Amino acid sequence: MSHEEKLSTDGYKGVRDFYPEAMAVQNHIFTVMRKAAEQFGYVEYATSVLEPAELYEVKSGEEIVRDQMYTFLDRGERRVALRPELTPSIARLVAARRRELSFPLRWYSIANMFRYERPQRGRLREHWQLNADLFGIPGPEAEIELLSLASHIMKAFGATDADFEIRINDRNALAENLTTRLKDPALLPDALRLLDKKDKIGPDEFETQWRTLSDGSWELPTVPPENVSRIMERLATLHCTNVTYAPLLTRGFDYYTGVVFEVFDTSTENPRSLFGGGRYDRLLEMFGVESVPTVGFGMGDVTIRDFLETHGLIPKYVSPVDLFICTLDPSFFDAAQELANRLRTQHVTVAVNLLDKKVGDQIAYADKHAIPFIICVGENEVKDRTYAVKRLSSGEEARLAESAIPEHIRNATA
Amino acid sequence: MSHEEKLSTDGYKGVRDFYPEAMAVQNHIFTVMRKAAEQFGYVEYATSVLEPAELYEVKSGEEIVRDQMYTFLDRGERRVALRPELTPSIARLVAARRRELSFPLRWYSIANMFRYERPQRGRLREHWQLNADLFGIPGPEAEIELLSLASHIMKAFGATDADFEIRINDRNALAENLTTRLKDPALLPDALRLLDKKDKIGPDEFETQWRTLSDGSWELPTVPPENVSRIMERLATLHCTNVTYAPLLTRGFDYYTGVVFEVFDTSTENPRSLFGGGRYDRLLEMFGVESVPTVGFGMGDVTIRDFLETHGLIPKYVSPVDLFICTLDPSFFDAAQELANRLRTQHVTVAVNLLDKKVGDQIAYADKHAIPFIICVGENEVKDRTYAVKRLSSGEEARLAESAIPEHIRNATA
Repeated sequence: MSHEEKLSTDGYKGVRDFYPEAMAVQNHIFTVMRKAAEQFGYVEYATSVLEPAELYEVKSGEEIVRDQMYTFLDRGERRVALRPELTPSIARLVAARRRELSFPLRWYSIANMFRYERPQRGRLREHWQLNADLFGIPGPEAEIELLSLASHIMKAFGATDADFEIRINDRNALAENLTTRLKDPALLPDALRLLDKKDKIGPDEFETQWRTLSDGSWELPTVPPENVSRIMERLATLHCTNVTYAPLLTRGFDYYTGVVFEVFDTSTENPRSLFGGGRYDRLLEMFGVESVPTVGFGMGDVTIRDFLETHGLIPKYVSPVDLFICTLDPSFFDAAQELANRLRTQHVTVAVNLLDKKVGDQIAYADKHAIPFIICVGENEVKDRTYAVKRLSSGEEARLAESAIPEHIRNATA
Repeated sequence: MSHEEKLSTDGYKGVRDFYPEAMAVQNHIFTVMRKAAEQFGYVEYATSVLEPAELYEVKSGEEIVRDQMYTFLDRGERRVALRPELTPSIARLVAARRRELSFPLRWYSIANMFRYERPQRGRLREHWQLNADLFGIPGPEAEIELLSLASHIMKAFGATDADFEIRINDRNALAENLTTRLKDPALLPDALRLLDKKDKIGPDEFETQWRTLSDGSWELPTVPPENVSRIMERLATLHCTNVTYAPLLTRGFDYYTGVVFEVFDTSTENPRSLFGGGRYDRLLEMFGVESVPTVGFGMGDVTIRDFLETHGLIPKYVSPVDLFICTLDPSFFDAAQELANRLRTQHVTVAVNLLDKKVGDQIAYADKHAIPFIICVGENEVKDRTYAVKRLSSGEEARLAESAIPEHIRNATA
């Protein structure tokens, strides 16, 4: 490309730019997730988005590896992947320190991941996900805790039990039920995958494919297995009133070994699975170390954002900047900057005008950037050290000594 | 790879895993950066780590593009890059909305970036960086603000003016000085790059290479140009006493157009450049839109972490979890979980024991995870609803009603 040619301002297809207002929504989502995870005793970890490609070739759902994973050769001829999911990375970390770590572990991460999707509406190539995992609890207490956390996050976003539904199943119970009907027990993974896409492909196609795998018989279990019952009872005690038994639920990944669950949007406009998880007690085995019983879930930002939009739960944008200091003319830049620095030590977030513009234009600028308060610095203010602090939304004005400004702003924005 | 083969637990070479204690340091660094940026009126944005490869082929320092950038072809045959730096991405965002955005913009982002380095000690392939940019201020007020912010961040980490030095130069002044000595003005970029590596290659090699470009003459300017003087004076008023004029400073990137600066560690163990930035007034031109005067800097996590270690400024690890609830036996799991949920609504972060282990082992577990407080739930606690809240570091114990626990913990951890 020559220097004269113009570059496009388009980013890479299927990934997102977050301008400040979009970033504020993203930060809201991450903050709610992070706060809830920590309230439940989870601590944060992180790994790189780059992983050796082999990590995903053993246990992930096969479609992802074959068709959707980003892999490339680096300059040293190593096969590298952009992670398509986080679970193999966390398993890698736990396996690497299997002997030193003190279980149970409650770990969370908020991480981006990539899948090569054909570009189309709502199909993104990069998304962010909260992953929360509890390592070392074999009993249903683990599922109860993770589902309490999932429900707590939904409620922290402002949702009620009526807005979503928690669906639970035990893949083992389902597998036993299916295996008796299959032509060959080795067809079980195919059968589970077929069930996973039952709603997508429709009843006729399902029926056809089911006959290729089985004796064609079909009977839906109606009573939940004991562990699922126990989880549902306890969640009811913990004020989760929206839990149902979903006898056909399987989740896509091959690594689940027991209970699986899914959180579903109950709205008529957006009736879809929001996120899910389950128990995977054997994932560490691929690293040749003794396994640890584990339950986890992954909650993605794109579906959560859709959910929040559908239910009117996205908060109005407010700038993280509390105060804009206008200047009567450029000779007051220095005074304004010094005032700003003093207020910053009192935890006020402050931007300062540094252009030779009319005060009216400066105020319009602050308003456009959704900064709630302004002060104007001129001769009188420098002399008296008192300032008219104006709230732009109401026009309300208070003349205050410098020392009174931080509390005035804190009270109004709290 | 067959299912029987064992996977390595090593991650991709040159990137880092952050176990919770390392993550806490990382979060400390990011929190200080974020808080300082917002105190100065900067708002957060983000872009994807994937960008079209062309974005870096016009203006970046050439070495990076040629030798160090990660690029690959995606499944649709597009050339994709893992960003080696953030500046072109932010320029892309501003250029895309050049007409709608209301300037000045104060924007920041904390983002990871990749460079293919040969694996060796201290050379990482991925690092994170705070990028702070001020768009739309042509005068030295912009440099003054960014350098105030940079200094403020260093002090928020606990550093004093004696621990680091801010070095400033104006590339234009340097370029004028050099151009009069060059065989051809077109050799200026080569001359600037040569100066940038002067300390690395040593005086003899510098002398040899300098003669190939110039008449061989050499005179160091001693008086800073006017804009640099103005910046230094103002910074002194704003309590930055560690600013010096560095007449040979150029910074690596071709896109700087005026003032450049660098923050340098003054310790004898770690005497190196920590981070830097400068003015780049013409970067938007590559997108064919009218340019905006801009000053920015990028502050990386790896060098900052080294700095904090060198100066003993890394805080001791404290778990984000305030309280661990032990259970006398498994029959108290339910009561413990319900107590935990009630405390969580009062903003206490709580983990609950869910294993059939001796109370002594549960306490040892909490201690190992650096959780500061424990409670033990048994028959008496369920009956009385009072709890002995024990601080593990001191052994100090207080018997409290449930409602008094949150404040007790908050006072102790504040």
